Amino acid sequence: MDTDEFREFGKAAVDYLADYTDTLRERPVIPNVEPGYLGRLIPDEAPEKPESWQEVLGDVERVIMPGMTHWNSPQFHGYFPSAVSYPSVVAEMLSAGIGCLGFSWMTSPVCTELEVTMMNWLGKMLGLPEQFLNCTKGPGGGVIQSSASVATFVGLLAAKERTTRRMMKLHPDWSEADIKAKLIAYTSDQANSSVEKAGLLGSMPMRHLPSDEHCRLRGSTLLEAIEKDEREGLIPCYVVATLGTTGTCAHDCLEELGPICNDKNVWLHVDAAYAGAAFVCPEFRHLMSGVEFADSFDFNPHKWLLVNFDCSAMWVKDSRYLVEAFNVDRIYLAHEKEGQQPDYRHWQIPLGRRFRALKLWFVMRMYGVQGLQNYIRHTVNLAKQFEGYIRNDDRFEIVTEVTMALVCFRMKGDNSNTRELLDKLLARRKIYVIAATYREKLFIRFVVCSSLCEARDMEFAWKEVSERATEILNPVPQQDVAVMSAIESSKEPATNIATMIKDLKIEHGLKEKAPKIS
Amino acid sequence: MDTDEFREFGKAAVDYLADYTDTLRERPVIPNVEPGYLGRLIPDEAPEKPESWQEVLGDVERVIMPGMTHWNSPQFHGYFPSAVSYPSVVAEMLSAGIGCLGFSWMTSPVCTELEVTMMNWLGKMLGLPEQFLNCTKGPGGGVIQSSASVATFVGLLAAKERTTRRMMKLHPDWSEADIKAKLIAYTSDQANSSVEKAGLLGSMPMRHLPSDEHCRLRGSTLLEAIEKDEREGLIPCYVVATLGTTGTCAHDCLEELGPICNDKNVWLHVDAAYAGAAFVCPEFRHLMSGVEFADSFDFNPHKWLLVNFDCSAMWVKDSRYLVEAFNVDRIYLAHEKEGQQPDYRHWQIPLGRRFRALKLWFVMRMYGVQGLQNYIRHTVNLAKQFEGYIRNDDRFEIVTEVTMALVCFRMKGDNSNTRELLDKLLARRKIYVIAATYREKLFIRFVVCSSLCEARDMEFAWKEVSERATEILNPVPQQDVAVMSAIESSKEPATNIATMIKDLKIEHGLKEKAPKIS
Repeated sequence: MDTDEFREFGKAAVDYLADYTDTLRERPVIPNVEPGYLGRLIPDEAPEKPESWQEVLGDVERVIMPGMTHWNSPQFHGYFPSAVSYPSVVAEMLSAGIGCLGFSWMTSPVCTELEVTMMNWLGKMLGLPEQFLNCTKGPGGGVIQSSASVATFVGLLAAKERTTRRMMKLHPDWSEADIKAKLIAYTSDQANSSVEKAGLLGSMPMRHLPSDEHCRLRGSTLLEAIEKDEREGLIPCYVVATLGTTGTCAHDCLEELGPICNDKNVWLHVDAAYAGAAFVCPEFRHLMSGVEFADSFDFNPHKWLLVNFDCSAMWVKDSRYLVEAFNVDRIYLAHEKEGQQPDYRHWQIPLGRRFRALKLWFVMRMYGVQGLQNYIRHTVNLAKQFEGYIRNDDRFEIVTEVTMALVCFRMKGDNSNTRELLDKLLARRKIYVIAATYREKLFIRFVVCSSLCEARDMEFAWKEVSERATEILNPVPQQDVAVMSAIESSKEPATNIATMIKDLKIEHGLKEKAPKIS
Repeated sequence: MDTDEFREFGKAAVDYLADYTDTLRERPVIPNVEPGYLGRLIPDEAPEKPESWQEVLGDVERVIMPGMTHWNSPQFHGYFPSAVSYPSVVAEMLSAGIGCLGFSWMTSPVCTELEVTMMNWLGKMLGLPEQFLNCTKGPGGGVIQSSASVATFVGLLAAKERTTRRMMKLHPDWSEADIKAKLIAYTSDQANSSVEKAGLLGSMPMRHLPSDEHCRLRGSTLLEAIEKDEREGLIPCYVVATLGTTGTCAHDCLEELGPICNDKNVWLHVDAAYAGAAFVCPEFRHLMSGVEFADSFDFNPHKWLLVNFDCSAMWVKDSRYLVEAFNVDRIYLAHEKEGQQPDYRHWQIPLGRRFRALKLWFVMRMYGVQGLQNYIRHTVNLAKQFEGYIRNDDRFEIVTEVTMALVCFRMKGDNSNTRELLDKLLARRKIYVIAATYREKLFIRFVVCSSLCEARDMEFAWKEVSERATEILNPVPQQDVAVMSAIESSKEPATNIATMIKDLKIEHGLKEKAPKIS
């Protein structure tokens, strides 16, 4: 393809994307396909000869869209958001088209330097303690990782490095293997499944400590667990506290956990994957109070800050432990930041790295701090609007306090009505919500996800929920039979809800508490 | 930004990228900046108010380009390529703009299904044994990872899972921790640094076995090492064989290594990060003969197959070990592929995953199998052209056989002339080549990287190399003084070459053999 053809093709794709976004509200948010649908639409081998861009672009609508779950539809209220914004999309295209790899300063100076600067901009915008920033004298700094899961794992490896070094100094007669076999990590029973996975990958047992009635991990619970383990000869190494849990957007009590971690020399990692974005607004920062005790902090601009996936922003107070954990040269690097730039290949698992800082630069400049604050507040207000509908209707109850843009609600009484409501919502495919459970109660998670969401979308979702509740509580025989037969004629709703509940349980780690849903 | 503004902005960015590509040949491939240059060009905080897209896009040229190493310049011959093609760039933009996350089938059916199908297309195109493909009955299948480093690490975790299970069955009295502490991995001294890193991250010692005079790992070397370790009570678990090493593009002898691994129940992972792309051409497939013994195979379409970073294609013969290593539910999944789709979140480290299969779909369709074959052959022919210049000049020698598009050459004699040549080339910034060493000999790696490369670029590079050699061997005092003073007036060349050599040593793990270069 020559450049002239690319100009045509690229612009047609821009128009396609613009049209797609403009029609998102009208597209069914959940696709109506069975597993294996794609095999009937495309051949099972690559073509021998080239096809035209017109054919391929046309097939996006014909082949791709029927199987698409529209994460940026204003009717998508599942999981947490997958951010998209036009500035970010354009930056992604430019980054792809330039194709530089910034694994060291030399391999593309701007790739490293823009990342350093953007992580400073972003850290300041969030009000992070300055020890985390690269622009201060100390060994702190920020780096873009691919996801919060990866950041949790990277934190674990750095923690392992730090603790192992410390214990080897304290006990020169202990072997490195013996020390590593005794390391132990902690998180709450509300932590994302990726925290458990980090423990699994890093061969460090991860204790899931019970959260309090507001789903928060408390200091006393952690202290008790640490002391018990210490008595048994284990070595507490790593704590993952969550700000904005996947289940209910709860915030662990950093002010209680932090001093314990510092006192016990345990690495405190803060996983603020979703909630972190809200800290661009000063009125939410009380929820991260105690962050100054943390050793590392991560949040996903690719969730709620208009930067498309992937872009997970991680800061550490002392980058030397990271570098030591990852540097295959295993040389202890003195910290001489003056005039030096970080070698980001030693801050991450892979060697190669894309120019993702460009997305942050485009988004922060084209929205400005105020624009991003407005965006967060707008989203939170929409959630409040939806919460209001629920609170004003006696048939429903709010499960946990709504702090950000996640509303957890259910139908009053036992779980059967909520379960039926979920079945009906999924069968109709008008809105995408997902199920979760807390303390035996089945509830519905409703997240304001899409940047396209407006007041009318909250009304739409509420109308959909409310009408289904009416069908459940006041069944009109004729109508009900029709609806039920529509449901039963399709095998998908049952599959869907089972899959969705399984997905969510896996994702937010509530599996032990989840009642069996058949 | 509204949709209409995006149409303008997106199209302006398409034009910018087209212009950038059209002017790549004229841009200096290596930037002329000092560390910290960016701080003088942009503010140290994000703007309060939004800026216009015109300002931001304009700053790409003013701020970004001066610090850019142009990986897709036809004068870039360092490392291995970072692929770019127009179809891939457009697919990347669409994927970003749609923003779906396919961590399970349900979260976007097409995201999983297109990946399954594209990995089948690609596997067939490479002539991989069909046990690796998802379209056969067995438990094999392909998945897109973010990089070859990650794939190596993922393979290690799956190997650990398989060996641990097997040993626990064989020795029910051994503890899991004891077994894991005895596991051991092997690779050659030519393996990429990421292989060492995988061992480090996965807490499995990685032995770097000596390669033969053609830089290949041989069966007898592996067998000897395995048997020695077995005698000492260790448990051989994982072998990483490289097809196309970073240093010299050597190919380990899979036909020798494979039967040993199978016999010893050791997981054999093939890292064909660079070379894998060449197997779309049947005439290169003899270099992967023995691949049928492998348990996993990975190569990077984002290197030499026109798919932009990231897109690393990994296949496994038995995906159940992967799923077990990553599934936090720890449930042994029976293999019931009929009608089922893989849950890719259990095939990788992070939870979230982008819709990268779209890039493969666009590239394979718009080039066709023949187009991709032509592209590989074109690149290899250009390398042959460059090799011819070197071979026809008595001042130079070829270091290792040229099998693909990497030419390893040096000036005859001790290392001093080659070192001076490298200094001169870097000081002039006309072409980007990097240094490497093998068996005490310093040499220059010249890779045909950019898809823009033509015969005239080989001539250009050769002229640059040849003229510098003439300056070294036949110094004309006046002229030489001028050149030398130009070099000395800048502090960067010295920094650059030291950094580059360090980078490369770190990357391809030749550090033990590298002579000190000051």
